[in-house]
Amino acid sequence: MKKYVYQFEEGNYKDKKLLGGKGAGLCEMTKMGLPVPPGFIITTEACLDYNKENRLPSGLAEEIRQNIQAVEKKLGKNLGNENSPLLFSVRSGAAISMPGMMDTILNLGLNDKTVQGLAISSGNERFAYDSYRRFLQLFGNIALSVEDEKFDSVFNEIKAKYGVKLDTEMNAQALKEACESFKKVLREEQKEFPQDVYKQLGLAVIAVFKSWMGKRAVDYRREFNITPEIADGTAVNVCTMVFGNMGNDSLTGVAFTRDPGTGENVLFGEYLINSQGEDVVAGIRTPKPIAEMVKEVPVIYEQLEGVRKTLENHFREVQDFEFTVEKKKLWMLQTRNGKLNAAATVKTSKDLADEGLITREQALLRVNPEMVQQLLHKSVAPKFTGQPLTKGTAASPGVATGKVVFTADEAERRGKIGEIVILVREETKPEDVHGFFRARGILTSRGGKTSHAAVVARGMGKACVVGCEALTFESNGKVARVGETHILEGDIITVDGSTGNVYLGEVPTIDRGFSEELSTILSWADSIRTLGVRANADTPTDAIKAREFGAEGIGLCRTERMFNAAERLPIVRDMILADSQEERIEALKQLFPMQKNDFKEILKAMEGLPVTVRLLDPPLHEFLPSAEELSLEIDQLRGFKHLLDTMEQVPKSVKIKEDPILKKYVKLLRHMSTELAEIKDTKLWDKILEKEEIMLKKVRALAEVNPMLGHRGVRLGITYPEIYEMQIRALLEASAELIKEGKNIMPELMVPQVCTAQELIWVHDMLQSLKAEVEALYGAKVNLKFGSMIEVVRACTRAGRLAEIAEFFSFGTNDLTQATFSFSREDAESKFLPLYNQRKILLNNPFETLDIKGVGRLMDMSIFWGRKTRPDLKVGICGEHGGHPKSIEFCHYLTLNYVSCSVYRVPVARLAAAHAKLKEGKEDFLYKAQ
Amino acid sequence: MKKYVYQFEEGNYKDKKLLGGKGAGLCEMTKMGLPVPPGFIITTEACLDYNKENRLPSGLAEEIRQNIQAVEKKLGKNLGNENSPLLFSVRSGAAISMPGMMDTILNLGLNDKTVQGLAISSGNERFAYDSYRRFLQLFGNIALSVEDEKFDSVFNEIKAKYGVKLDTEMNAQALKEACESFKKVLREEQKEFPQDVYKQLGLAVIAVFKSWMGKRAVDYRREFNITPEIADGTAVNVCTMVFGNMGNDSLTGVAFTRDPGTGENVLFGEYLINSQGEDVVAGIRTPKPIAEMVKEVPVIYEQLEGVRKTLENHFREVQDFEFTVEKKKLWMLQTRNGKLNAAATVKTSKDLADEGLITREQALLRVNPEMVQQLLHKSVAPKFTGQPLTKGTAASPGVATGKVVFTADEAERRGKIGEIVILVREETKPEDVHGFFRARGILTSRGGKTSHAAVVARGMGKACVVGCEALTFESNGKVARVGETHILEGDIITVDGSTGNVYLGEVPTIDRGFSEELSTILSWADSIRTLGVRANADTPTDAIKAREFGAEGIGLCRTERMFNAAERLPIVRDMILADSQEERIEALKQLFPMQKNDFKEILKAMEGLPVTVRLLDPPLHEFLPSAEELSLEIDQLRGFKHLLDTMEQVPKSVKIKEDPILKKYVKLLRHMSTELAEIKDTKLWDKILEKEEIMLKKVRALAEVNPMLGHRGVRLGITYPEIYEMQIRALLEASAELIKEGKNIMPELMVPQVCTAQELIWVHDMLQSLKAEVEALYGAKVNLKFGSMIEVVRACTRAGRLAEIAEFFSFGTNDLTQATFSFSREDAESKFLPLYNQRKILLNNPFETLDIKGVGRLMDMSIFWGRKTRPDLKVGICGEHGGHPKSIEFCHYLTLNYVSCSVYRVPVARLAAAHAKLKEGKEDFLYKAQ
Repeated sequence: MKKYVYQFEEGNYKDKKLLGGKGAGLCEMTKMGLPVPPGFIITTEACLDYNKENRLPSGLAEEIRQNIQAVEKKLGKNLGNENSPLLFSVRSGAAISMPGMMDTILNLGLNDKTVQGLAISSGNERFAYDSYRRFLQLFGNIALSVEDEKFDSVFNEIKAKYGVKLDTEMNAQALKEACESFKKVLREEQKEFPQDVYKQLGLAVIAVFKSWMGKRAVDYRREFNITPEIADGTAVNVCTMVFGNMGNDSLTGVAFTRDPGTGENVLFGEYLINSQGEDVVAGIRTPKPIAEMVKEVPVIYEQLEGVRKTLENHFREVQDFEFTVEKKKLWMLQTRNGKLNAAATVKTSKDLADEGLITREQALLRVNPEMVQQLLHKSVAPKFTGQPLTKGTAASPGVATGKVVFTADEAERRGKIGEIVILVREETKPEDVHGFFRARGILTSRGGKTSHAAVVARGMGKACVVGCEALTFESNGKVARVGETHILEGDIITVDGSTGNVYLGEVPTIDRGFSEELSTILSWADSIRTLGVRANADTPTDAIKAREFGAEGIGLCRTERMFNAAERLPIVRDMILADSQEERIEALKQLFPMQKNDFKEILKAMEGLPVTVRLLDPPLHEFLPSAEELSLEIDQLRGFKHLLDTMEQVPKSVKIKEDPILKKYVKLLRHMSTELAEIKDTKLWDKILEKEEIMLKKVRALAEVNPMLGHRGVRLGITYPEIYEMQIRALLEASAELIKEGKNIMPELMVPQVCTAQELIWVHDMLQSLKAEVEALYGAKVNLKFGSMIEVVRACTRAGRLAEIAEFFSFGTNDLTQATFSFSREDAESKFLPLYNQRKILLNNPFETLDIKGVGRLMDMSIFWGRKTRPDLKVGICGEHGGHPKSIEFCHYLTLNYVSCSVYRVPVARLAAAHAKLKEGKEDFLYKAQ
Repeated sequence: MKKYVYQFEEGNYKDKKLLGGKGAGLCEMTKMGLPVPPGFIITTEACLDYNKENRLPSGLAEEIRQNIQAVEKKLGKNLGNENSPLLFSVRSGAAISMPGMMDTILNLGLNDKTVQGLAISSGNERFAYDSYRRFLQLFGNIALSVEDEKFDSVFNEIKAKYGVKLDTEMNAQALKEACESFKKVLREEQKEFPQDVYKQLGLAVIAVFKSWMGKRAVDYRREFNITPEIADGTAVNVCTMVFGNMGNDSLTGVAFTRDPGTGENVLFGEYLINSQGEDVVAGIRTPKPIAEMVKEVPVIYEQLEGVRKTLENHFREVQDFEFTVEKKKLWMLQTRNGKLNAAATVKTSKDLADEGLITREQALLRVNPEMVQQLLHKSVAPKFTGQPLTKGTAASPGVATGKVVFTADEAERRGKIGEIVILVREETKPEDVHGFFRARGILTSRGGKTSHAAVVARGMGKACVVGCEALTFESNGKVARVGETHILEGDIITVDGSTGNVYLGEVPTIDRGFSEELSTILSWADSIRTLGVRANADTPTDAIKAREFGAEGIGLCRTERMFNAAERLPIVRDMILADSQEERIEALKQLFPMQKNDFKEILKAMEGLPVTVRLLDPPLHEFLPSAEELSLEIDQLRGFKHLLDTMEQVPKSVKIKEDPILKKYVKLLRHMSTELAEIKDTKLWDKILEKEEIMLKKVRALAEVNPMLGHRGVRLGITYPEIYEMQIRALLEASAELIKEGKNIMPELMVPQVCTAQELIWVHDMLQSLKAEVEALYGAKVNLKFGSMIEVVRACTRAGRLAEIAEFFSFGTNDLTQATFSFSREDAESKFLPLYNQRKILLNNPFETLDIKGVGRLMDMSIFWGRKTRPDLKVGICGEHGGHPKSIEFCHYLTLNYVSCSVYRVPVARLAAAHAKLKEGKEDFLYKAQ
């Protein structure tokens, strides 16, 4: 027969799943000799069996009775004894802490008789009836399902009758009357209040058991993905009541063994003299900081200092505990691992290791890698209580305050004259990037965590909130609104990219630097991890930052980001719109020195470390305005021209400068560098029209149905060889010049969107011939590694062949995930992925968490065949997953050589890589099963 | 030492690679005892060695000399003998026939001396000098590289001098003078004409060798992908000259052992008395049909009938042969397998098998499956010689003549009143489908073989020409142009979807039915193949046709085609634009009876055979107008409204009915069913604007960046469960009703775009509950198979898990190919795929030919894991590859259960499946190698 009930002395701390977290803590403290009021635990198994059969398991009632007797024996008090009754608290407690389940029932064991005994034995009638009325309400509400409001309402009537406002002002008589009224409420609700104390306990236990399957608890478990493997059923903790409200020699409090906000090694907490836990919650009195105990109750403080040491030495972890002092006697009511913020976690990890309480490995595993990023950005001061104006999706952490601007041009203009601005847009596009450079933060009303704005902002380490749907824009482009609140250009706002909150005005922030403790923790991580960590960086500034953050190279340098700079975009557009190869080459000649200089600066910044340059990837139309935009303009022009043609002259009532439609044309005119005076010259309009129409035609010709699967990457390179030729030559010449300057550089060249070895061979041939040419020109030998992105599914199936040419692979898991799922990232995240997650069709967003069973399998296949051809094939990942801890763990498992992630994720990745190493052989992802 | 030269008696027919096709044929005929003029072959190896070293291989000259002597011995004539000279023809001949290489040199061995001997020995001076001048020009041109024009020019001068027009009118003197002039031409070109006949032969051989590496030949080999495995080097055939122009007892001719146009078992060919092959080509005289020999030269005819039997009995294949009669003596100059058209191939295959010359298996292998399709459609009569107006891409075979219409609505309108129309558009969209139903043929100016127009037309078996770029459209939508030719609505045109030709007016056609021979061949194929063949069919009409063509079921019934019918699209749009689930359900209720009836009709048509219904797949926005279209309309409306607002009144100069811009609004007004009279009422415009703006907003909300990877397939089903519920219920009720009517039906339900088992489980749960409901309602048990499309890469990696729920898999290789390559089909085919093929980056279009190394590997993986879970898992393919012979071969290799293809490909697939079975173990695709 199963054992369903354990005395606190009996339970084993390791059996958390059986005893619940709270119960296990009570058992452990009891065994450690800490003063825990006697009691026992009814196991989670009993809960499960109850819910299966819908009745108490046989023998459980008897087992509970025996355990009550054991407690009675210890205390010399009996449950239901009319003179000196034993009282219990009854609490739920699952394996992990879970709000949404049953509240505590206190003072169980009181009835019409025992309350009198309590009054006598405590010498305090008011206390006894106060305890009774609390119990009647809690029990009535929790065990008998009567709404709290019913009790509150009669209680308020009695207070009115006695002319008091606060509960504490009620005398014994009033409370006695409350008890009678509460019993009346129960009768009216057809609920019988059991005078039999055993029956009270039985109903309380059943209420706890049922609460496990209650809607709130079930929803909570679904929401936080708490599976039966993590927690299954709740235990019931039955513990002797102790009272912190028995006078000024009693108190109640909560404490941490170290400061959970800073990690400082001091006792931290609050207490309240002559009170119960409830009172603290009710906010009637303000608790005092625990430091004040030193003066007020020094003996207790001494005892707590002892407890603190005992707990930490035993649990080797910061503890969060509850205690009560009843008539000068300290009782421990709960202990559990303390929840610390990021800074405190890092500091205590280092300190605990330094103090010898834990090993360095344990210290590393204590720090969740995601926490590290929080420490690199400003955050809203914890003390700030102002309400946000609205909330969007937190897309790139950090807090930024600045003046609102609605266009990238305006961001640049104001940025240049030293103003701090926040770029606020419906969504952003590649051509807005010059605005990003100047903006402190980004806010958009559309898009998800992987929208353009989000990705670029993360790459640049700028605070960013996206998908803020409450935000709408007036058509004049100068006003945004949230409900009735207007936001004008120049208004100050604050965006918090860690929470998604958007505030009007400035809010106080705190700076989270690369603390000494964090540096230490990361250096420990570096000494343990075997997986390399590189950064994705496109500019010399990024490269310098990456190195500062500990990157061991650049795994992805995107050359298209360079194309988007404001002064280059017009040249890039000329190149795209060129009618002939000659014209295209002409434009490329202008880009060449810029590109070469970029490469030179980045290679220089990363001296001694590898830099992987990826050839142009995105489809060319990404650099052009949209067809919709252009055709609207053209149609407006036509309409206006028609108006001019139809009328003898422009009617006087049309005032050019004030007319919103005419103003559009004025903008167009400016675009053509033409004078306004000529506005009535219809031939001019024809000229404008012609130019616009040519542009539209090209945009249409380049337009694609599915740009993600379109004319991009190496396909572009093969169609317009002059583009790749320019880029490769720029890298070779930059390298040759640095080599001649004596720099130790390690350039690598990578081809995007490869699906067949023939493509690689084609680029490799081009590289070889340019290399020979440049080496001859400079008289310097350029060592350059040649590799392939693996981001097309077919590349995975052809990896063995690709490795004949490629010296390294770099997984582009963003695109690979899209192709594997046939999910367009932008479309999926805005259209159906949230629903998929909600309905558990998919447990994660595969664009955030690497999909092991699908994408992972393809990666595994690629590595297997690739290394079969070339055993020393270097393999990395440069998709966003490269900065995601769980995915990094899988990359380590797959024996990748390195991960490459955005600059601000580098410290996260360093720690995650160490975790992966430490978890070797204990990976908890299901993989090999098909 | 290599043997470079073979007498005709020595060569082995199987050594075609060494001897060339022509040489092998001559050897074989010699061995068979047929009268072949003596001669020898210089091997392809000699050619390769020559081209490697750039000089004749050592010993070759001597070997040739010995072989000349052998011929001389046989004939008692000597090369270069001044009295009775031996003359040779010298021809190239690679392993396969290859235009673009050297022409024949005839009469080699003539010089200033031997020509005189020939004159005497033949008793015909004119003949001798005619032969000499021909040789001088051929040799001069081919061996000495002097342009033909040089000779033609002096030749014409001589004709002028002698006052004759035709060569045949020239006398011996004139021809003698021509010989002198030709030698002068050569001297002027600094070329020495060798009087040494051995030197002549040496130079001729070298000319042949060199022609193998000539530009024309190299281009030809590249174009037709003739690799060294197929043909490497050319042989040189040196054959004794025989003359068909030695008088009226001489003749020359070509013949087939059977009619290559019909397959009829009769000698077929042409001959010309007293002439050489050249003359036939020059078209000076018209050759006679060979049947006339019966009267004119019955002895020769008898001999040829004998030759015909001998050749066919020996080669067991229809032969195409050349012959010459010199003074009543028949000589065979060439034989090879005859090129037959589709009808003749099918007929002769059946006949040869019936005659016992070949086995049925051999008969099947003789017919290229692609040929079968040619037999199912009308084609332009071979005798028709009219010129096409223009040419596009042949997209769906067949010839259609009809009146031009420019919109689907017009096609429907005219179609309904019995007119036969051709739908002519820039490109087509799903909403044009009602026009397809009524059109006889489709012509578009844009798109490739897999554009919407092409795919739908093939599915419906309608003639279709796409990508006809010369075709442009006037903006009024009522006129198209090709160059200066205007095509008006109602004009008659003819489109030939087998050739891509477009004709003005009607052209004569011939009907190619399902001939008796074809039926026989296909029935033999059915008895051999093990791979099932089903059809993709969406309507009852298609289903009936499919059955007629021998489909063993429907492998893909696309429910969205049903949504596009003209009377349903408005309801579908209402459903999409619905604001609430209730409104959506309301619209679905209207669709339900139509959908149910469709299913009922299709299931009925396919009684006894399985019908696989696929749930809705395409994204909803495919059923709506485009955002660009709508926003243009809105902007125009705004512009016009602004005009109205600005003016006191609409200026008189604006005449509403004639103004092209106003007419657009009038169209919009009609769209709103509003009266024109109200045009000045700006409030009305506001109302229109509002409605349009709501529509635009929804279109924008539904718009996707990459629709191919968007909100479609089962993702839609999970987001809007009511859609799939309607469809499943319709299928279940249709089935239940038929079952109650006693029909033996086999419905199957298939889920599109599956990427995880959870999706399948979700739909399966829905199916189970609806099934229980419908079965209870009808009191009938519905047996229905449940399966998954495998068209998402992740489905391949999760196949083992999917097979736990799915009873069958159906590969959607169109989408799977897109995802595997990251190629959007529309974009790839118009942007870079042609270049990729041209540069040999990819050898095929993977959307036409299944990509074995990438997509095939994923299929293999899916089948392996799927059958591991469920050994009896049924596996099919329903992508377009299912109708492609090479891909069918691979499907057979992968042990698929069936292929499903468009209705008109069913006979092709039946034959291809038989080929696959017959080629088992001899598959020539590289697969297992990574």
